[in-house]
Amino acid sequence: MEINFQIAESSKVPPKEGFREAFILHLADNTLILSQRNSEWCGHGPVLEQDIAITNISLDLIGQARNFYQYAAQLINTNRLSGSSKLSPLEGLGEVDEDKLAYLRNEREFKNCLLVELPIGDWAQTILRQFFFSTYQFYFYTELKKSKDTQLAAIAEKSLKEVTYHLRWSSEWVIRLGDGTDESHQRMLNAINVLWPYTGELFQPALYEATALNNSIGVDLNLINPKWEEKVKEIFTEATLPLPGKTFYQAGGKEGKHTEHLGYILAEMQYMQRAYPNSEW
Amino acid sequence: MEINFQIAESSKVPPKEGFREAFILHLADNTLILSQRNSEWCGHGPVLEQDIAITNISLDLIGQARNFYQYAAQLINTNRLSGSSKLSPLEGLGEVDEDKLAYLRNEREFKNCLLVELPIGDWAQTILRQFFFSTYQFYFYTELKKSKDTQLAAIAEKSLKEVTYHLRWSSEWVIRLGDGTDESHQRMLNAINVLWPYTGELFQPALYEATALNNSIGVDLNLINPKWEEKVKEIFTEATLPLPGKTFYQAGGKEGKHTEHLGYILAEMQYMQRAYPNSEW
Repeated sequence: MEINFQIAESSKVPPKEGFREAFILHLADNTLILSQRNSEWCGHGPVLEQDIAITNISLDLIGQARNFYQYAAQLINTNRLSGSSKLSPLEGLGEVDEDKLAYLRNEREFKNCLLVELPIGDWAQTILRQFFFSTYQFYFYTELKKSKDTQLAAIAEKSLKEVTYHLRWSSEWVIRLGDGTDESHQRMLNAINVLWPYTGELFQPALYEATALNNSIGVDLNLINPKWEEKVKEIFTEATLPLPGKTFYQAGGKEGKHTEHLGYILAEMQYMQRAYPNSEW
Repeated sequence: MEINFQIAESSKVPPKEGFREAFILHLADNTLILSQRNSEWCGHGPVLEQDIAITNISLDLIGQARNFYQYAAQLINTNRLSGSSKLSPLEGLGEVDEDKLAYLRNEREFKNCLLVELPIGDWAQTILRQFFFSTYQFYFYTELKKSKDTQLAAIAEKSLKEVTYHLRWSSEWVIRLGDGTDESHQRMLNAINVLWPYTGELFQPALYEATALNNSIGVDLNLINPKWEEKVKEIFTEATLPLPGKTFYQAGGKEGKHTEHLGYILAEMQYMQRAYPNSEW
């Protein structure tokens, strides 16, 4: 006898996505959303040189996002043709490509961690977020380079060169601001208060991350967590900034439960594609 | 007997600036303001790939602006020390640098042509403006490379490589949109209507441009005007777009008389520096 499981719309069961696609979309969304946030500085940095630097970082991140989206689109389209796709939220989109994945998914389908969607705040907050995230990306990509998924390993290797620069740049800024004037030091303290509660989510594996790890394509977040803490401690010490202790961490973004901020980012970002659907220019 | 000419504040005589500094600031302002305008697309391009392309063009332009501002600052500071500076509007700034010149001058002191300060409009308008301006820059820098001012010649040579790419990229887009769908063709017609009256100013020399030319450091705009027209005609023909005839051209930007749009750009752009004057981070 065949049993059909009916899953109610209102059920709390997560959408049945392929773990590999979900894992890749998570990596893509992280970089796309942070790129969007940083791009708000485009033309508004404190000095021309840093305006260029933060915009270049935005471009690197959007480049990484494109690589991940293109790979995810390829997997999703192939699986759909073979009838094995379980990415139900995307069914309405037909054949997908990088732009559809970036511009036509809903807030609930975005899998970025909350840290990257927070407002840019002041320059100190932007710098500190970049430092936290670049440190995370540095150790994450170092591990992802060993993935059994050779395409992911290749993207990680290519991205790592960029991230190494982002990490150096943001570390230097953290030190410059932390060990700078009274005002810049105070701004860094404020930034730590705002951002620290969002750093824990980076190391709490979502189901697709755990499954990816079990299938030797993912990254062991427990392995990179102490390395991240060590690096933050080293730079904070040099920056004369206090290292906060464990706290209650905000989480949910990886599973599509976002702060109110993401909706505004998506509305801004997705306007063109939604206003001119399938426009052929 | 020595005669003192008294010039009334309300006189129409232009501020007594050194022509060389004014000429260089004009070039810097052109690229800074267009960079600002294009950067509004940062994160909002029609597709990820073009979002990156237009942002890269922004970065190239801001890089050119930095080169010009740095050189202008060097000349202004040197002249001031020797007592020969006539850049009176800048007197309040003390020693200047690229950031002061970009972020602390007033609307009346900006010398960009009006074309670059117009709103981005839709994608068609952005593309067409870039095409008009890149074509102008291409022929302008080609001549400026021969300037007796070797520093200007060097900046021109370096910038020309970037502009060559901008021109190719924007030409391809003009053809793609003009010879595309009915909608994209119509959008290009609208863009031509909006922008064409602002193209004439590119070739009307301001006093400092004429003086620069007479001193063998400037560019003969009468020489590059027909080349510009020829190129526009060539691309418009391929794009199936009509070439407008002579019209009444809007001008004034080069002498500091701007549209209402520039004030808003400067307010946005200069906020950080004005809010935190001389902030040491």
